[in-house]
Amino acid sequence: IVTLTEAEESADKGEYRHYMLKEIYEQPKVLRNTLQGRISKTQVLEEAFGAEAKAIFDQVESVQIVACGTSYHSGLVAKYWMEDWAGIPCYVEVASEFRYRKVVVPKNSLFVTISQSGETADTLAALRSAKEAGYLASLTICNVANSSLARESDLSFMTLAGPEIGVASTKAFTTQLVALQLLSIALGRRHNLSSDKEQALVSALHQLPQLCEDVLALDDTILHTSEAFSEKHHSLFLGRGVQYPVAMEGALKLKEISYIHAEAYPAGELKHGPLALVDSDMPIVAVAPNDDLLEKLKSNLQEVQARGGKLFVFADKNSGFVNDESTVVINLPHVDDSIAPLVYTLPLQLLSYHVAVLKGTDVDQPRNLAKSVTVE
Amino acid sequence: IVTLTEAEESADKGEYRHYMLKEIYEQPKVLRNTLQGRISKTQVLEEAFGAEAKAIFDQVESVQIVACGTSYHSGLVAKYWMEDWAGIPCYVEVASEFRYRKVVVPKNSLFVTISQSGETADTLAALRSAKEAGYLASLTICNVANSSLARESDLSFMTLAGPEIGVASTKAFTTQLVALQLLSIALGRRHNLSSDKEQALVSALHQLPQLCEDVLALDDTILHTSEAFSEKHHSLFLGRGVQYPVAMEGALKLKEISYIHAEAYPAGELKHGPLALVDSDMPIVAVAPNDDLLEKLKSNLQEVQARGGKLFVFADKNSGFVNDESTVVINLPHVDDSIAPLVYTLPLQLLSYHVAVLKGTDVDQPRNLAKSVTVE
Repeated sequence: IVTLTEAEESADKGEYRHYMLKEIYEQPKVLRNTLQGRISKTQVLEEAFGAEAKAIFDQVESVQIVACGTSYHSGLVAKYWMEDWAGIPCYVEVASEFRYRKVVVPKNSLFVTISQSGETADTLAALRSAKEAGYLASLTICNVANSSLARESDLSFMTLAGPEIGVASTKAFTTQLVALQLLSIALGRRHNLSSDKEQALVSALHQLPQLCEDVLALDDTILHTSEAFSEKHHSLFLGRGVQYPVAMEGALKLKEISYIHAEAYPAGELKHGPLALVDSDMPIVAVAPNDDLLEKLKSNLQEVQARGGKLFVFADKNSGFVNDESTVVINLPHVDDSIAPLVYTLPLQLLSYHVAVLKGTDVDQPRNLAKSVTVE
Repeated sequence: IVTLTEAEESADKGEYRHYMLKEIYEQPKVLRNTLQGRISKTQVLEEAFGAEAKAIFDQVESVQIVACGTSYHSGLVAKYWMEDWAGIPCYVEVASEFRYRKVVVPKNSLFVTISQSGETADTLAALRSAKEAGYLASLTICNVANSSLARESDLSFMTLAGPEIGVASTKAFTTQLVALQLLSIALGRRHNLSSDKEQALVSALHQLPQLCEDVLALDDTILHTSEAFSEKHHSLFLGRGVQYPVAMEGALKLKEISYIHAEAYPAGELKHGPLALVDSDMPIVAVAPNDDLLEKLKSNLQEVQARGGKLFVFADKNSGFVNDESTVVINLPHVDDSIAPLVYTLPLQLLSYHVAVLKGTDVDQPRNLAKSVTVE
């Protein structure tokens, strides 16, 4: 009898046609794993960041996040959380740019790297250069224990996404978001975040895995929707606020595996140029939770419709979008604003997956790309 | 005898087929006008920012820039100058995002808006919300005296670009860059910038108009190059460091007037996703001055060539690129790093212009766009 280790088990596609699809479907489970032991019923257990975390977190006055690709997008989401909830200035930059720039380091700034593999060459080089630049301390969020980033950082937080085989990152991204949310809360406590607000955020996190299950049940609807993209060459992905980086990640997925040129814009920037691209041949994806920016987003989307653009709106079921000739609405359950970026990511992953399958590309090994980029 | 005012004269296309082309060609002159009386032989004359500028500049410890579209790109360039030369932290955000975000304001932060018209609705709203947020003071860089932004800001600096009629901004952008360079120097004096360095920067600015003339002489070469784009639907624009926002502006121009889906990337991010898009049907434009990042950029470009991508490199004549089957090199004169973002912008403007003319679009009034966006 041969007993498979968990890693070997996970490395099997099982019932799924592709690793990517399996990894999308694993998200409720791995989000639960990543939260397990890191939150109580009402609080973040900050020991999860390591024994020395408390003393370091006490001193943090700002945060610099550095990452590449999908991990960079998770950092962009976290900026909103850090500044909005915690009241801590947070700056985010791609590693290949950061490492070559003369950076002004604010006092007591925490240097945070994010990487699935923990081996991303540019991110590792940025960490090494940051050590001489005067940051307070370094923290990495990664998915591989004992990776170079984990070994060389003062603090580390392991996402428990399990092995990710598909080149296009899915479950690593959402578990990074959970990690960053815990970090924002842990730092926020020492600044603007009340214990009531912490309790509300933690309570939403407890609901997250189930909500992800619910959203995965939209798979058939999304499969149907994907047919509208399979013959297209372009797409724009729109979001506002914290959903703008979610739109960026959605566009990156479509680029990576379907080779459709998808680009994300904060919806308010459309009229400053990209609206010129919009015609009936350009599907527009919008991420529309029922938040403060909904009415502004709707007015941006009307401009798109007026120019003949076909809209695909991933919307809160209460946000009042209706299907018509120019609009396909995919309704999502109502979720708390704090976890909306995670929940809205899943249908965008599924959309890219189905478009790629329809186009017949190599979903798990898209052309020109490697899983971890260990060269500069 | 009717005497034309300067405004009326400028509003005539003269010998040019389009306002945009006229405005591209006016850049040496309007850059000279914008510098006139604002620099001495060796120094920035900071009175140009207003009588109260000195007292405010003395207190500035960081800068927040807010703008939209092309003006946003000029802000992104300035971030490099502020941090690299002046050692002052500088943050840049699109106005439609900034105004809806809960922002953490650092101590003694100068709030800078940039807008050609001075009436951009989102930028104006951001300025109004910033007034309650605790910024030290506000400064606007705009091209219209007595505009709303100028009236409502503590300090203002007028670019002297003259009336800009073409919807796609050209001369407004480069004069904004000059204004931001003067601001970076004025603030930098109070921080890390030595008087020797100031003298070198000012000396390069004195050479700028003539270098722009020299680059405009490449027009025929660029016209010839533009033929390779007229049947394409996509393009990637690559830059590194301070040239990344120049690549963004180049891509935006192509989008706006030729309706080609052009997207900019910092070249080091290619391998984290967008490289999947690259095939023989995707022309790649690279901005390659002979700077510290040249060797890194070359290695990024080799990855593109290995995947069949056709390269169009705007390169310093000393940077060692050679024309071959997969590479078209447009050689530019050697220029100082400090003014390279300005000089490299001009050939990208000409490229978009000629592609649009070949495609037969309405160059001065591209579809779906307005000259100044006075609605949110």
